[in-house]
Amino acid sequence: MSKQKPSLPKGMRDFGPVEMARRNFIFTTIRDTFRLFGYEQLETPAMENLSTLTGKYGEEGDQLLFKVLNSGEFLKKVTDTAFKSGEGSVLPLLAEKGLRYDLTVPFARYVVMHQNEISFPFKRFQMQPVWRADRPQKGRYREFYQCDADVVGTDSLICEAEIIGMIKRVFAAFGLTDYRIHLNNRKILSGIAEVAGAAGKETELCVAIDKLDKIGQERVVDELRQQGFSPAALAALTPVLAHSERGNEEWLDFLREYLGNSALGTRGLDEIGEVLDFLSDLGEDTSFLKLDPVLARGLSYYTGAIFEVKVAGVGIGSVSGGGRYDNLTGVFGLPGISGVGFSFGVDRLYDVLDALGLFPEVQNEGTRVMLAHFGAEERKQAVRYLAAFRKAGITAEVYPDLAKIKKQFTYADKKNIPYVAILGTEELASDTLSLKNMGTGQQETLSLEKAISRLEG
Amino acid sequence: MSKQKPSLPKGMRDFGPVEMARRNFIFTTIRDTFRLFGYEQLETPAMENLSTLTGKYGEEGDQLLFKVLNSGEFLKKVTDTAFKSGEGSVLPLLAEKGLRYDLTVPFARYVVMHQNEISFPFKRFQMQPVWRADRPQKGRYREFYQCDADVVGTDSLICEAEIIGMIKRVFAAFGLTDYRIHLNNRKILSGIAEVAGAAGKETELCVAIDKLDKIGQERVVDELRQQGFSPAALAALTPVLAHSERGNEEWLDFLREYLGNSALGTRGLDEIGEVLDFLSDLGEDTSFLKLDPVLARGLSYYTGAIFEVKVAGVGIGSVSGGGRYDNLTGVFGLPGISGVGFSFGVDRLYDVLDALGLFPEVQNEGTRVMLAHFGAEERKQAVRYLAAFRKAGITAEVYPDLAKIKKQFTYADKKNIPYVAILGTEELASDTLSLKNMGTGQQETLSLEKAISRLEG
Repeated sequence: MSKQKPSLPKGMRDFGPVEMARRNFIFTTIRDTFRLFGYEQLETPAMENLSTLTGKYGEEGDQLLFKVLNSGEFLKKVTDTAFKSGEGSVLPLLAEKGLRYDLTVPFARYVVMHQNEISFPFKRFQMQPVWRADRPQKGRYREFYQCDADVVGTDSLICEAEIIGMIKRVFAAFGLTDYRIHLNNRKILSGIAEVAGAAGKETELCVAIDKLDKIGQERVVDELRQQGFSPAALAALTPVLAHSERGNEEWLDFLREYLGNSALGTRGLDEIGEVLDFLSDLGEDTSFLKLDPVLARGLSYYTGAIFEVKVAGVGIGSVSGGGRYDNLTGVFGLPGISGVGFSFGVDRLYDVLDALGLFPEVQNEGTRVMLAHFGAEERKQAVRYLAAFRKAGITAEVYPDLAKIKKQFTYADKKNIPYVAILGTEELASDTLSLKNMGTGQQETLSLEKAISRLEG
Repeated sequence: MSKQKPSLPKGMRDFGPVEMARRNFIFTTIRDTFRLFGYEQLETPAMENLSTLTGKYGEEGDQLLFKVLNSGEFLKKVTDTAFKSGEGSVLPLLAEKGLRYDLTVPFARYVVMHQNEISFPFKRFQMQPVWRADRPQKGRYREFYQCDADVVGTDSLICEAEIIGMIKRVFAAFGLTDYRIHLNNRKILSGIAEVAGAAGKETELCVAIDKLDKIGQERVVDELRQQGFSPAALAALTPVLAHSERGNEEWLDFLREYLGNSALGTRGLDEIGEVLDFLSDLGEDTSFLKLDPVLARGLSYYTGAIFEVKVAGVGIGSVSGGGRYDNLTGVFGLPGISGVGFSFGVDRLYDVLDALGLFPEVQNEGTRVMLAHFGAEERKQAVRYLAAFRKAGITAEVYPDLAKIKKQFTYADKKNIPYVAILGTEELASDTLSLKNMGTGQQETLSLEKAISRLEG
């Protein structure tokens, strides 16, 4: 065992006590909300068979999967010929397992494997880390948590309304008020393509439209032209692309007419209308909702509603998103499982709450009172008092060593402990303690019982 | 994407809603206890550099590490020569990272990397999965959780007493009453070797002694004889090996005399005495404590107290254990970091609580009331009521689809939902709901407000 300066692999992070308290505040808020809405927790293992993972995330995704070397004699199956023909031939012989890349594919696998036990509609949530061999950069890590909730086995649009309700509840608990939930429906995008006479070029249209925010209307039109959209099609698309000025009502009015000849587009509009009705039944105000007919994420996957949530004024991308799909498990041989789901991005939410100063003081999970002492007898008394504090549910610790009082206070200070209970000769003689508020500097001598009720209050 | 019947890698597990509720009950109890005692949470990444992990767990441990294939062109560095010389030469060229094998080595790495920010004594807890390429068998998995608490940077025996206090609190919360905390001290084991004139053969003595429970006194003596222990040494050891009859007081009396000439052994006894004193100051009864001078786990590591916890009547090995060490971080170039720590085995605790029927009913994290409906108008009303239930903090859901009432009840039944609120024509007309207790079958018609207060109660 040689001595070495240890380090972390790139893109990996430790979370110390302060970060953990903040992250736990985020996790607890999200978990409580999922539960309040009747979602049940699921956990799947970190490792899946590569056969489960590959081919599910596109070619780029396959590259970003972390593969786990077979244990034992991992070279046994690797022939000379395979070695000479390179990675593609060697990989299946070396590695049979990979690390979870997202929570959706493991969920789909779970549904297929447990289809006979699950009572549909199945409302599940999952909060676990995922791993991607992405190039690390600011805000992008190789290990990060996803928090997903999905309901499968129902087409009811109540689910869409409830997802919006969950996002609102979580953000309210965070104290986040300035955000927009962008809402679209894949059928509206399809309808737009239909109306513009570009029904076969829906993907190209959506890829270009998705960049509207970043590159602007003019360059989107350029791109569409290069993709072979006719002048007539581009003209037909103009009123859609010049979208930024419209409010929700305006959009609805405009689209009712624009999509009048598209049965699919009209169905998309009807679905949005139904979601809005359920939101009203739920008593949710909809001022935070932004109808966004050019929102085009997850196109290879989503077939109905599409969501995305953006927080104003922080320059951080979307912090939550999702949509409705109609074929979760077809790739595993179980067709017809439709559902709707969404995800919170914990790392981005952390950055948002940090930037806006929204981590509450109450997030402190740490010690509420530390017992300091001037000697062995006082420490003995401190240990006796300690048990009483904890019995009352007050997070408490005693400075374990016989040390100078200054050192004990430095420890309490560094650990952000709000109260120190001091035991000296006088306190020992009078069966009291001196309780110091570390924030105000105020100190008072109290009986144990008084101190406990002070700290409970 | 070919259709395939998905499966899990061997030794890996999914946890569905019922198991998750039970596991969360265990995690929450342990986490709350760690926090009450002033321990702060830490999380480290799943992947560590292999240089951090290898050489820390012995040769067998190195074999059991899961290695992660380098991303991208992983064969690039593998020369023909390396390939021909086999796994040992190829491994460092293929894989630079491995999966966390335990929580101790990542903790040591963290302490070294953050030594300038940490205020010692550092009380940290960590609850995360670890991975080992062990042969899977009943009760042994390739992914499992560890729950560790350690305090480093202090020699105070208050920490040992507090560990015992934490174990007691966790077990009390579980409703576990019939268990023993076995307590020993490495210095007592050393003292025994010294007294028997086998000071150089301490390891052999301890390895043999550790089997006393399994193979009995006679075969332990045989093994010691084979290891070259003289008849005199064996005779000197006899009163120790015939240990099963002694209570704590008897052991203490016996060892005071037996170890009288061993300074180290006597120090071990003094330490145990001091731990007992602190336990008494903490008000802990010590009837569950079993002084066990032949408890010999973690010998290459522990230098002071050694703990192990066994539950009676379940035939499951130790569910918790730990000890004091004096060199956590030496291998990373930071000497002199001493501490004491212990760990709960979540999977074994799960099996114990399951075997003893101790998972409480209150563990149910799921929906408390489901709203069922006889048609679209009734469902609309149900959605309105839903919001009110949730606002009162009652976990609630509505059956999302328009479906036969029987189907809705089957869903509630399968999901173990204790109450169903039924909305039909009559309820709609009278602004009420019929609340059915699914356990007793009782049903009553109530206003929304009454139903809420019924479910809150």
